[in-house]
Amino acid sequence: MNYQFSEKVSHLQASAIREILKFTSVPGVISFAAGNPAPEAFPVKAVREISEKLFQEDPVSVLQYGITEGYLPLRDLMKERMTAQGNFKSDSEELIITSGAQQVMELACKSLCNPGDTLICEAPSFIGSLNAFKSYNVNLVGVPLDEEGMNPEKLEQALKENANTKLIYLIPNFQNPTGKTTTLKRRKELYALAQKYDVIIIEDNPYGDLRFAGEDVPTIKSMDTDGRVIYAGSFSKVLAPGIRVGYGIAPKEVIAKMVVCKQVSDVQTNNFGQMLAYQFMQTVDFDAHLAGLRVIYQQKAERMLNGIAQHFSKKVSYTRPEGGLFLWCTLPEGSDMTGFCQKAVQEYKIAVVPGNAFMVSENDVTYSFRLNYSTPKDEDIDKGIAVLGQLTKTMFD
Amino acid sequence: MNYQFSEKVSHLQASAIREILKFTSVPGVISFAAGNPAPEAFPVKAVREISEKLFQEDPVSVLQYGITEGYLPLRDLMKERMTAQGNFKSDSEELIITSGAQQVMELACKSLCNPGDTLICEAPSFIGSLNAFKSYNVNLVGVPLDEEGMNPEKLEQALKENANTKLIYLIPNFQNPTGKTTTLKRRKELYALAQKYDVIIIEDNPYGDLRFAGEDVPTIKSMDTDGRVIYAGSFSKVLAPGIRVGYGIAPKEVIAKMVVCKQVSDVQTNNFGQMLAYQFMQTVDFDAHLAGLRVIYQQKAERMLNGIAQHFSKKVSYTRPEGGLFLWCTLPEGSDMTGFCQKAVQEYKIAVVPGNAFMVSENDVTYSFRLNYSTPKDEDIDKGIAVLGQLTKTMFD
Repeated sequence: MNYQFSEKVSHLQASAIREILKFTSVPGVISFAAGNPAPEAFPVKAVREISEKLFQEDPVSVLQYGITEGYLPLRDLMKERMTAQGNFKSDSEELIITSGAQQVMELACKSLCNPGDTLICEAPSFIGSLNAFKSYNVNLVGVPLDEEGMNPEKLEQALKENANTKLIYLIPNFQNPTGKTTTLKRRKELYALAQKYDVIIIEDNPYGDLRFAGEDVPTIKSMDTDGRVIYAGSFSKVLAPGIRVGYGIAPKEVIAKMVVCKQVSDVQTNNFGQMLAYQFMQTVDFDAHLAGLRVIYQQKAERMLNGIAQHFSKKVSYTRPEGGLFLWCTLPEGSDMTGFCQKAVQEYKIAVVPGNAFMVSENDVTYSFRLNYSTPKDEDIDKGIAVLGQLTKTMFD
Repeated sequence: MNYQFSEKVSHLQASAIREILKFTSVPGVISFAAGNPAPEAFPVKAVREISEKLFQEDPVSVLQYGITEGYLPLRDLMKERMTAQGNFKSDSEELIITSGAQQVMELACKSLCNPGDTLICEAPSFIGSLNAFKSYNVNLVGVPLDEEGMNPEKLEQALKENANTKLIYLIPNFQNPTGKTTTLKRRKELYALAQKYDVIIIEDNPYGDLRFAGEDVPTIKSMDTDGRVIYAGSFSKVLAPGIRVGYGIAPKEVIAKMVVCKQVSDVQTNNFGQMLAYQFMQTVDFDAHLAGLRVIYQQKAERMLNGIAQHFSKKVSYTRPEGGLFLWCTLPEGSDMTGFCQKAVQEYKIAVVPGNAFMVSENDVTYSFRLNYSTPKDEDIDKGIAVLGQLTKTMFD
């Protein structure tokens, strides 16, 4: 028979990153295209011990149904931690455990947006979130980033032009894909604009704990006096992505709707992941663990930045992230960026993600591509950056 | 600030069952309201051993990202098993691992239905699925069940009246909430009607392996010559619901869209649950395990049925399920069913689910309520049914 798909999905394609990731399993390809945590960042020994303990002490609780809102001890612990960070107000807000932070974006958009409503995002931004928004047929409007974050003049212009704006989606810390961090001044300006135009902000902060340079900047959520910020956090980058545990914080009314949407989707997040996250934070010095991760990522980022400084054509510019997993390289204006990325993977066996994958439309012009330094081994960073540098020199010098 | 929710969710309420489940944690209440597997049905020892092995042998694979379609060895194994059962055709179909079977319904509806499209379901039917469909603003039309399954004359009438019907949702085996099984003749008639009106069937079969009486009936999927049946299966009732692992089978084009929708929701199902399900089926005699489960549920069902025969007013009728977790009691026509259920929990401390929770609209008239026999302990079945019987006699004799 012929299948007629819904308007929601008929325009959706599989994530370009995930498609590239499949390609990069070709033997011999060095991949800077992923966004995986470094394998050495996984606390394997602690996880092994906790897992054993869970199945010894209370196996039925791991295996039986739990409640949609999430495993209560984990929720209580995260509320405490988030209160200390200024991200949770117990009188007016709730916290939901989700199956990865990605689910926060999906549930928030489903709960709040009708088809055609405008959702403003950074351009470029995280492709997974953009596709989640697109899957609800919102009018997705990209506002360019400058060196301090989303440009406020251009945001205000977008807000004026789109009176039906419901949400502004921001990744203020070590943004994916650019590695940029929104400054404190800029966070205040963006929040003030959200107030002025009465829209909700989604603050996606999966990398916030992975700052390895510079100073912490307060979250937008911590400035939120109106209950207009939905905050998304994740255990994917600080514990393990395979357990699929994230969390969302929002005013109680909003979380109540997100709970209903989660109930009809996956009923609840898997118990093992939730209990592991809880036990890990209870039994291990979590802040010491985070400090260890920062060292790993700092060394990898520096390694890649040093390689770029040494090998890349001087006509290629790039960001210097203070945390997170990514940096963003920009080819000279007018370059054939897609051709560069194709040549890189096909002829030079180096995979990177073309920047247009992160734009609202893949046809939007960008001369940039994303490099990931968390996944590859050190020797592959050295070798791969040298090879990629050769390509930049061949093409641009 | 004031929150304006989307049209999709503004009419949605939290599942009445889940709300009742919260209430049933009140001490002293015997609950027949849940749908949990019996705790003694969990293969704790095997799970413990597999978990230990997984974290000893390849912890990084458990913790790292996997692909959206699911853990490849589990997919291959399930394709093999489903092929043997007539539920999978490798040339034209694909299998996706989902975060519980509930997600199959959500992804299928999102992929195929526009707001206003008609989706026909059994009346009554599983509330979780109905809410998933409602969350995409479909026109949900309930067709009554008779003793053989969904009534075909009434289905045809509904198909004629709703030319925009996209999907028919069926639970042919030991239906939730009624415990009824659709006969082979009826399955053929329903499939023929789906062909005649060119609509897709979703066959939800979470309880299929839990038949403890009567003879297996071929799935509708096994009769599917057109690629018009989406099949949903689950490990929740045959291994453990807390791991959140289910699967969907459909034509490749349909699965491709469901994969995109899953990618933007939870990215992938948690690795631990998938690897546990795979290893369990590899290392344990799965069919012997299922045989063990059937004995547990047969004994519990018989215990409840004997109690009902002994204690209930003869004016209350009930189904005799051949498998699954539920039976369905019907009070005399004109009774105050909701009042009965309220009195049961508040005065008699016995929780049941009022039947209108499973109707398309909670205002639809039904005199029935659902009893679950898998979750309560044997002594609670005995005691609770005797107490509930007292109430039926007080009210109806």
